[in-house]
Amino acid sequence: MTYEVKSLNEECGVFGIWGHPQAAQVTYFGLHSLQHRGQEGAGILSNDGGRLNRYRDTGLLAEVFKNPSDLEKLTGSAAIGHVRYATAGTASINNIQPFHFEFADMEFGLAHNGNLINAVSLKAELERNGAIFSSSSDTEILAHLIRRSHNPSLMGKIKEALSTVKGGFAYILMLEDKMIAALDPNGFRPLSIGQMANGAWVVSSETCAFEVVGAKWVRDVRPGEIVIIDDSGVHYDSYTDDTQLAICSMEYVYFARPDSVIHGVNVHAARKKMGRRLAQEFQHEADIVVGVPNSSLSAASGFSEESGLPNEMGLIKNQYTQRTFIQPTQELREQGVRMKLSAVSSIVKGKRVVMVDDSIVRGTTSRRIVQLLREAGAAEVHVAIGSPELKYPCFYGIDIQNRRELISANHTVDEVCEIIGADSLTYLSLEGMIEAIGIDTDAPNGGLCVAYFDGKFPTPLYDYEEEYIRSLEEKTSFYIDNVKKG
Amino acid sequence: MTYEVKSLNEECGVFGIWGHPQAAQVTYFGLHSLQHRGQEGAGILSNDGGRLNRYRDTGLLAEVFKNPSDLEKLTGSAAIGHVRYATAGTASINNIQPFHFEFADMEFGLAHNGNLINAVSLKAELERNGAIFSSSSDTEILAHLIRRSHNPSLMGKIKEALSTVKGGFAYILMLEDKMIAALDPNGFRPLSIGQMANGAWVVSSETCAFEVVGAKWVRDVRPGEIVIIDDSGVHYDSYTDDTQLAICSMEYVYFARPDSVIHGVNVHAARKKMGRRLAQEFQHEADIVVGVPNSSLSAASGFSEESGLPNEMGLIKNQYTQRTFIQPTQELREQGVRMKLSAVSSIVKGKRVVMVDDSIVRGTTSRRIVQLLREAGAAEVHVAIGSPELKYPCFYGIDIQNRRELISANHTVDEVCEIIGADSLTYLSLEGMIEAIGIDTDAPNGGLCVAYFDGKFPTPLYDYEEEYIRSLEEKTSFYIDNVKKG
Amino acid sequence: MTYEVKSLNEECGVFGIWGHPQAAQVTYFGLHSLQHRGQEGAGILSNDGGRLNRYRDTGLLAEVFKNPSDLEKLTGSAAIGHVRYATAGTASINNIQPFHFEFADMEFGLAHNGNLINAVSLKAELERNGAIFSSSSDTEILAHLIRRSHNPSLMGKIKEALSTVKGGFAYILMLEDKMIAALDPNGFRPLSIGQMANGAWVVSSETCAFEVVGAKWVRDVRPGEIVIIDDSGVHYDSYTDDTQLAICSMEYVYFARPDSVIHGVNVHAARKKMGRRLAQEFQHEADIVVGVPNSSLSAASGFSEESGLPNEMGLIKNQYTQRTFIQPTQELREQGVRMKLSAVSSIVKGKRVVMVDDSIVRGTTSRRIVQLLREAGAAEVHVAIGSPELKYPCFYGIDIQNRRELISANHTVDEVCEIIGADSLTYLSLEGMIEAIGIDTDAPNGGLCVAYFDGKFPTPLYDYEEEYIRSLEEKTSFYIDNVKKG
Amino acid sequence: MTYEVKSLNEECGVFGIWGHPQAAQVTYFGLHSLQHRGQEGAGILSNDGGRLNRYRDTGLLAEVFKNPSDLEKLTGSAAIGHVRYATAGTASINNIQPFHFEFADMEFGLAHNGNLINAVSLKAELERNGAIFSSSSDTEILAHLIRRSHNPSLMGKIKEALSTVKGGFAYILMLEDKMIAALDPNGFRPLSIGQMANGAWVVSSETCAFEVVGAKWVRDVRPGEIVIIDDSGVHYDSYTDDTQLAICSMEYVYFARPDSVIHGVNVHAARKKMGRRLAQEFQHEADIVVGVPNSSLSAASGFSEESGLPNEMGLIKNQYTQRTFIQPTQELREQGVRMKLSAVSSIVKGKRVVMVDDSIVRGTTSRRIVQLLREAGAAEVHVAIGSPELKYPCFYGIDIQNRRELISANHTVDEVCEIIGADSLTYLSLEGMIEAIGIDTDAPNGGLCVAYFDGKFPTPLYDYEEEYIRSLEEKTSFYIDNVKKG
Repeated sequence: MTYEVKSLNEECGVFGIWGHPQAAQVTYFGLHSLQHRGQEGAGILSNDGGRLNRYRDTGLLAEVFKNPSDLEKLTGSAAIGHVRYATAGTASINNIQPFHFEFADMEFGLAHNGNLINAVSLKAELERNGAIFSSSSDTEILAHLIRRSHNPSLMGKIKEALSTVKGGFAYILMLEDKMIAALDPNGFRPLSIGQMANGAWVVSSETCAFEVVGAKWVRDVRPGEIVIIDDSGVHYDSYTDDTQLAICSMEYVYFARPDSVIHGVNVHAARKKMGRRLAQEFQHEADIVVGVPNSSLSAASGFSEESGLPNEMGLIKNQYTQRTFIQPTQELREQGVRMKLSAVSSIVKGKRVVMVDDSIVRGTTSRRIVQLLREAGAAEVHVAIGSPELKYPCFYGIDIQNRRELISANHTVDEVCEIIGADSLTYLSLEGMIEAIGIDTDAPNGGLCVAYFDGKFPTPLYDYEEEYIRSLEEKTSFYIDNVKKG
Repeated sequence: MTYEVKSLNEECGVFGIWGHPQAAQVTYFGLHSLQHRGQEGAGILSNDGGRLNRYRDTGLLAEVFKNPSDLEKLTGSAAIGHVRYATAGTASINNIQPFHFEFADMEFGLAHNGNLINAVSLKAELERNGAIFSSSSDTEILAHLIRRSHNPSLMGKIKEALSTVKGGFAYILMLEDKMIAALDPNGFRPLSIGQMANGAWVVSSETCAFEVVGAKWVRDVRPGEIVIIDDSGVHYDSYTDDTQLAICSMEYVYFARPDSVIHGVNVHAARKKMGRRLAQEFQHEADIVVGVPNSSLSAASGFSEESGLPNEMGLIKNQYTQRTFIQPTQELREQGVRMKLSAVSSIVKGKRVVMVDDSIVRGTTSRRIVQLLREAGAAEVHVAIGSPELKYPCFYGIDIQNRRELISANHTVDEVCEIIGADSLTYLSLEGMIEAIGIDTDAPNGGLCVAYFDGKFPTPLYDYEEEYIRSLEEKTSFYIDNVKKG
Repeated sequence: MTYEVKSLNEECGVFGIWGHPQAAQVTYFGLHSLQHRGQEGAGILSNDGGRLNRYRDTGLLAEVFKNPSDLEKLTGSAAIGHVRYATAGTASINNIQPFHFEFADMEFGLAHNGNLINAVSLKAELERNGAIFSSSSDTEILAHLIRRSHNPSLMGKIKEALSTVKGGFAYILMLEDKMIAALDPNGFRPLSIGQMANGAWVVSSETCAFEVVGAKWVRDVRPGEIVIIDDSGVHYDSYTDDTQLAICSMEYVYFARPDSVIHGVNVHAARKKMGRRLAQEFQHEADIVVGVPNSSLSAASGFSEESGLPNEMGLIKNQYTQRTFIQPTQELREQGVRMKLSAVSSIVKGKRVVMVDDSIVRGTTSRRIVQLLREAGAAEVHVAIGSPELKYPCFYGIDIQNRRELISANHTVDEVCEIIGADSLTYLSLEGMIEAIGIDTDAPNGGLCVAYFDGKFPTPLYDYEEEYIRSLEEKTSFYIDNVKKG
Repeated sequence: MTYEVKSLNEECGVFGIWGHPQAAQVTYFGLHSLQHRGQEGAGILSNDGGRLNRYRDTGLLAEVFKNPSDLEKLTGSAAIGHVRYATAGTASINNIQPFHFEFADMEFGLAHNGNLINAVSLKAELERNGAIFSSSSDTEILAHLIRRSHNPSLMGKIKEALSTVKGGFAYILMLEDKMIAALDPNGFRPLSIGQMANGAWVVSSETCAFEVVGAKWVRDVRPGEIVIIDDSGVHYDSYTDDTQLAICSMEYVYFARPDSVIHGVNVHAARKKMGRRLAQEFQHEADIVVGVPNSSLSAASGFSEESGLPNEMGLIKNQYTQRTFIQPTQELREQGVRMKLSAVSSIVKGKRVVMVDDSIVRGTTSRRIVQLLREAGAAEVHVAIGSPELKYPCFYGIDIQNRRELISANHTVDEVCEIIGADSLTYLSLEGMIEAIGIDTDAPNGGLCVAYFDGKFPTPLYDYEEEYIRSLEEKTSFYIDNVKKG
């Protein structure tokens, strides 16, 4: 049995609002600030007095809503929205969220960020009992569980469904008379509650959306929590007590926007601290620090301040890199690489450069950047990575490459250093990263999920269990086909 | 008489290549790195053994060539390309370059960066003699002058035409058997020559394109020069000896990419020096430096190093700001502003911030950024601008707002400071800017055009003369309608 | 309770093929000849060795498959296709067929022409048992019934499902190893079997598709029949013996293409006979016969031959009438009407014209054509209709307007004559129509469904029963909201 | 020297209006009724108080104006429009009309139906004097001639230009304060004047447009005439007295809509008379008459009435034949042919069929239709053509195939009969055609141009002279490359 889970794994962004006359428009602006979490597709579902309307399509938010009338039709004072991560080949509109489920007796909308780890077995069991799925997304499972629950109350059905799915999830449901947000028992994915000046409640994957729509942060949704928002206000409930915070550490390292605050920690500040700590652990002589734009600029800044080395703009990112349809021919391939990033010769020439990056996945990009710096005249290139070695896949919502592709799953630090052509290679230690982020010193791993670094998954692996065990036995051949970044 | 010159003024990018089997593809990559110089439209014209083919359209380069076959049809070993600045309302495909002129006896292509100052009178005279223009661009004028010249040789006709047009221009012509680059007698616009490993010659508005296509810089085109490139190599000639370098200082301040080198000066380095000098001239107490991304990050870095104040990422630019079709309603307008830029509260809260920006045009953007910083908790906001006060329009190719809109043409520094809501406002001195850029200490203004700052234009103003004189008389009411940024 | 059945009623076309290397392309050509049966959307699902692929979209077939690669991806030696009737407003891609149902253990495709009359109650019951529908089409019901059947064999499940749905249906199912065609117990909709020269089996709503793809007619599918086609050939089975042919008479009157043959009767020939019979029943003096193009030209030809009056081209149809997005302003509305049809003054001037049309629904079109003829100079306009008065809605797959809109449900022949401004109005008698079509003289109504004319529906009305009874009580106010033509 | 005149030859439609508040919308409806004259592109230019605005694009009218706002922007009380014939490969928007010429001192619009025969030499001479052409259309020549004329008055310049161009032309010019229509000295192309109820004047290639917009025919424009329409009314003038009516006979045979009236003769009536005369000249036994839809239905009707043979609908044209992007594979090519036309077996089986068509160009289509009829069971197929043998090209605006492709230029009637597989082949005699159309019995050829039939061109051939003489010498090898139908 091969696991074709390619379209199940996804990093996405969700947003919801209750109580604003331009609910869909506010959602549009909220999603715009979450665009970095997903570029494959986007959608908004609005609630106009209990009647739900939805519009969705593939592409960036601005492409999906290029016709303003498509947004204007989404009338009503409540709405939820979703941006979806780009995975190659399966850009079917069927998988674009929010989903909209309609029945003779009710209707509801559903948006989901995360990845279930018992999706395959749940789906198989549901199908054996007559269920028909209309997408290849695991998000639909929750809807089937809700509709098939024998619990007499709708809230009871929803809690029962939430207790049945396993893995990482941040859900927003739009019912006819209320909006519901729910988080998995480990809080793998971020989800925050805010409030606008007019009293409207908003829910968002990241707090950066609150800035954009003019809302104030109220509090983060907690593991195992279910938040009910209706015209009477916000109510916090839970569907389980068996919780333990293990927020994805990669949100701090790479995914989230630097101006977001997750569990009380500003992402830029965390990255800067990781850069400072990395500088402490770094043991080489150098002249300047160069961050790989844009995600590593914060870490480079911290590294520079701690080390005293000047922080220079030795690498320039072209602002117009999104989606070109022209592929360089074989002869021009090396040039094509330089479309995204250029090294500034007048800065790096003759210098011993510390190149700060957030992570190394397959190593190919790092190798090219090292080469760019050398061609621009760098005397030495010391690579410093603001996180530990990536050795294990993630099952809770990030689409880390399968182990066969993870360079650190198959090579030692020295080997990687040689492969990428660097003069030295330094990873931030796991302890260093946990301390630098510093959410909660009392919790295991400081409240973080660090399984991609140490292989210790905070939950059973359900459908992935067998593969994982196999992977321990034959390390480098560990292979989950088609697990894409997401 | 009103001057409707809206589509004549343009800041653009040009690229040309001679002697490469994938000439059009190389041009595509070259233009990609010049995309920041123009986003309204793009085009490429190729030369296949003397037969020219062209494809152009409105939009970003990647949108214009979204169908790879459109590029594949541009066969041949030579090509020229153009990216055009976005001016509102006149996005007619007729104005997208390169132009392609076909005759029974010959054909040629033409790409132009700059603005002529005798275009109105030349066009009127040509029309009086039967000429028909097919676009509202002033670029077409050169073609009419060439075709109507009575000089017996084609090179003679071209030189005669180049001597007739006045103002700022960097032209690339593609003839059947050669490619020609030419610069105005003041060299207002940048233009450089490079060479690829296979011997192919390239010409580009900025050297950043050389990095992308793997070419080495050879030398910059000089004022009044005409460069002929054919299968026998490159030949430098001139059409006038009455030259004086006056390269546009705004290229260093704002337009050019930081990794480009213009007349021997790296743009990032120049900006950093402007930031250093600005720090020397700055006379206030502060805690941190925050650059306005992306164009002011170099200056902020220089300011930080010179002042010793930490350089912090207090403003975050959303990467996905290009063209949204959804306009915020009146109630959401303030939120809409934040789609592009966010202030990071955890960084600026309680701090006295030096906000470094490259220039102030109308003041509205500055006022909003100051407000963002204050709302995020900044204790004080001191605005430091890496260039002098913008008081005069440009007639050579930058689309600076007309004087009625230029805030510094109508207000003192203290008034501007109050309007934008800053605690203090410091502009870099003109001397400081000239010294910081430092091209050529012997030339007037160090080889720079600084007319937008001091009103001393390096050439007669021709069609604009009357307006300019009027402007000296009634300063604040100086008004050239529709002179757009470009 | 209002019946919002707008997207349930549909007149469509289906096509299937088994055993041809270019199965999808043959299906494309087959559907092309069925385009008159549906212009809202189209789709093709192919079977490549048991793996199904599907492409569908809104619009005409040629618009859906404007990118040839979308068709080329539909590999395999079997395929089914569908063209969908245009109903305003609900052009959601979700309702475009064929449907493609995927499960962990199997997959199948489904295309449907017709309308179920117990869809509302079946859907409600399925939803009560946890079913989730992904479209508003009633076609999906069959899939749920199949998946939920407890019959041990797949064929048993399918027969059970076919026995559960009521109304008019011609289904084609594509399973992994066979293709299945099935018809309702009254055979309301046409469906024929053919064979290509290479032995491939084809199934089509109309035989005109056989001409286009080069297939020979084998036989029509019979009421209550289930036809199984696989690599071993074609097998005829049935899921019920309680059958009685009642093929929709409007197929002969209006829908089907004149070159199709249904139950042994050529459509053009039937229309011509209806025209002859109409001429016999017509009792006025006239000079010329003018058919309303294109559907009434056959009837006009028959009328002319029987009456001896010359058949003239007094009305010209513009060939380019499809979809204009420009709506005439109030002042130009009368002109806009003439975009589709023009009267030829030199033909009708001074003549007593018999205007032959196939049917009158709301009367507005007839009134305008009469007016056109009068403005062109016709001395008298006698309207002759090739079918009886349309008084009742259809529940089996044609989207006849609701009773409130049917002019003949609310007005006598004399009243209608006055409303449309004719000098006389003659309808073909019911007996005349039945005899002219002449399928089977022994069957009730000669094997035809004529319920729209006499209100005697061949089946119970299930979900529509209550409304129908109510309609008998208060005749003119009978109202099923949103029952569109289809 | 090869003549690449492919984009010069065009059959098109023009429309103009002066004095209506919705001038552009009326023009849209007028052009819609002229769509059969050109499907490559369309455009409208409006005049709002002396300011001209234009919108044009490739495609059908409804595609060009699919965004209603593009039409709404064309404000003003006067407008001209154009539909352009589809020629393969050169669908550049540059050639789509009306052209819009803008100068500092004036602007004007220009629409053209026809073909100049001294275009190549005029264009060469203009270019030698510095003219730059922006399209490959010969229409632009008139604008250059007007602008270069030394005549002191604008009307004088226009008359001088009209006297300089030679060949076939119907022009409509939109000036700032008037609209001008002009016809060549032979009146090769039709052009009529009408008036709307509100007094607005309209000009159209065909009178069918008057029906659509609710205008009454006033009179046809005469050879050599120039019609000036402004707020004071309509004024008839002429630029030459050397005129002789020679209206294109193919307008009656094939191009024009049957409801149009040209020089007093209704097109449908003319075709019917041609059919009657053809029946008189036909000398074979037969059972039924079948016209090839749609253009030959009138002729078939006349043939039937004269011969007494029944007129049957033995060939059905698919209404949805416009532009499919899917090309049949080699194996399916024969099927693909049947997408457009089907034979009705129940009508033709066992019958001796007279297949009436309007003309034979290359013979390939005729051969396929004969084959369709035979496969449907026709006992004999006698082909009767409603015009004489097409032996010579047209230089005045129809794009008849070059002589190498014209089957009758290279084969006798008997040979053609054999090639197309008919049992007999009858062409209408030239005398028969001239008498049947019957415009003016006193004029040469009854006022018709019949040069494609007899090779006697009514004018010198100018740029084509040499080729034509050569063609007389080596008849079958006469070859003008790329002269497309148009």
